[in-house]
Amino acid sequence: METEFVDWLLRRIPADVRLEVPPGDDAAVLRPPAGRRTVVTTDMLMEGVDFVLGPDCPPQAVGHKALAVNLSDLAAMAARPEAIVVAVALPRHGGDAIARGLHEGIAALAADHGVTLAGGDTNAWDGPLVVTITAVGSVAAGVAWRRDGARPDDLLVVTGPCGGSILGRHLAVAPRCREALAIAARHTVHAAIDVSDGLSLDLSRMMAASGAAAVVDLAAVPIHPDAERLAARSDDRRSPLDHTLADGEDFELVLAMPPADARALVADPPPGLAPAIFGVVQAGSGLLARAADGTTRPLEPRGFIHAFDG
Amino acid sequence: METEFVDWLLRRIPADVRLEVPPGDDAAVLRPPAGRRTVVTTDMLMEGVDFVLGPDCPPQAVGHKALAVNLSDLAAMAARPEAIVVAVALPRHGGDAIARGLHEGIAALAADHGVTLAGGDTNAWDGPLVVTITAVGSVAAGVAWRRDGARPDDLLVVTGPCGGSILGRHLAVAPRCREALAIAARHTVHAAIDVSDGLSLDLSRMMAASGAAAVVDLAAVPIHPDAERLAARSDDRRSPLDHTLADGEDFELVLAMPPADARALVADPPPGLAPAIFGVVQAGSGLLARAADGTTRPLEPRGFIHAFDG
Repeated sequence: METEFVDWLLRRIPADVRLEVPPGDDAAVLRPPAGRRTVVTTDMLMEGVDFVLGPDCPPQAVGHKALAVNLSDLAAMAARPEAIVVAVALPRHGGDAIARGLHEGIAALAADHGVTLAGGDTNAWDGPLVVTITAVGSVAAGVAWRRDGARPDDLLVVTGPCGGSILGRHLAVAPRCREALAIAARHTVHAAIDVSDGLSLDLSRMMAASGAAAVVDLAAVPIHPDAERLAARSDDRRSPLDHTLADGEDFELVLAMPPADARALVADPPPGLAPAIFGVVQAGSGLLARAADGTTRPLEPRGFIHAFDG
Repeated sequence: METEFVDWLLRRIPADVRLEVPPGDDAAVLRPPAGRRTVVTTDMLMEGVDFVLGPDCPPQAVGHKALAVNLSDLAAMAARPEAIVVAVALPRHGGDAIARGLHEGIAALAADHGVTLAGGDTNAWDGPLVVTITAVGSVAAGVAWRRDGARPDDLLVVTGPCGGSILGRHLAVAPRCREALAIAARHTVHAAIDVSDGLSLDLSRMMAASGAAAVVDLAAVPIHPDAERLAARSDDRRSPLDHTLADGEDFELVLAMPPADARALVADPPPGLAPAIFGVVQAGSGLLARAADGTTRPLEPRGFIHAFDG
């Protein structure tokens, strides 16, 4: 029964001073940190689209990923994670075990990031598993990283190598929350976005929002070993660089930073981070690729776009 | 394309001073009202479970309902609605038209309640329509209505007649937000819950949370004309009262109030509200029904429970 699962769940939620009303009421009541903004993001994961339940992807992994993609959005705003609410559509058959696994995955990552589970909505149906998490964070007034602030001469930094996440990293997402807060504390960042749909596609979104162009130095784009492994498969016709620019689900951050800040970040990054400068912002629009010989050509943004017919 | 829909959507979102960063970034940045708590609730509606798309239920109605059930949760906390984020799984075929209809329904009710659409997540798949809305409200510290505060001798008030909502009212939900704020400004309310799953079931949840028992005066339970109409059907074997106690999706509020406050509310209700006193709280647990002759018997809570097998 749903109510039994919810009761089970409520007993497992640790008390949190940020909650004025404990979980289980009609809504959660949060004490917002004094003087800070409230940052809100929501992401829905659907079975068969974002994951396929099975031995390689148990419910725990789905719970982890569902929270991680939301935390990655908070990281891209330099916001501190505070609380989440979780809505699920559970398959009627086996839904109870799935729900418990989901909660395990969510609770572990939530504890790691100091996030409190504040409420939710549990449903059952004959359809596939759907999980929507909404994350609430906080940030000081006026300092959230936006995607529309990139300026000519900013250097483009990516916080780690990209590509080939489908080999497993797309599930074991490590959202860059702590790293983002560490960067925000030390450096100026003009614009930020997380790499969810593809490095080139997400970069193009930053440029469109900022009204600027990006020149991507192809030789400097950090290629993940998974992109190399994927490209080495006999049935794969794309290069490691293609995978790096287009695969997505890397959940690294792309940052547009003043040159001195970008260089300082790369020279002395936060623990566990391997950031790389891979391009520069200039006046104009769209993306350009600069080859090793210095020539440039237009770079088509590629990545994961959900299409539907009208 | 999803991106075209999102662009279309972003152009339609009115500017709002509560948003520090306009919609379309990785997350929304809200300016929380000074000194107030942040109230968060989430609800997921699934095609085939909560609605059936068709001539009687176009996407506009789904959008309206998806927002209304969230606003009803805020009303049950006496919270003022502030902002929403919307996550959708759209059927790949026809998803664009559905998305625009959803937005129409959401935008109209949002405008009516002064809520700003702060962000979202738009997805397409081969499955049914799923809509998750997360609503953010605000309330002064310490005054949110909880469900666990009912005390012996409190009178039980329901803000309007219940039952038979399946005849159409379950779609045309009018969340009691304004009415809740008006009541909170004038009266003491010890506990509140909205009637989503069934008057008796939701009342039993309030009593379980409060550690108290409710005596329901069967003759005083306000029966909606839709409950009468439903019971009058030749294939219906339940009484109007049965429908009123068990049908759910009424989205009225049940309030536990000191007797003088309850009587004052019923004598002089906010505009448009027809509240009724239908019972009393006493020490103990569970629900009792009091018949016209004064005798009492246990009342089994009934309503809509999502069950799934283990």
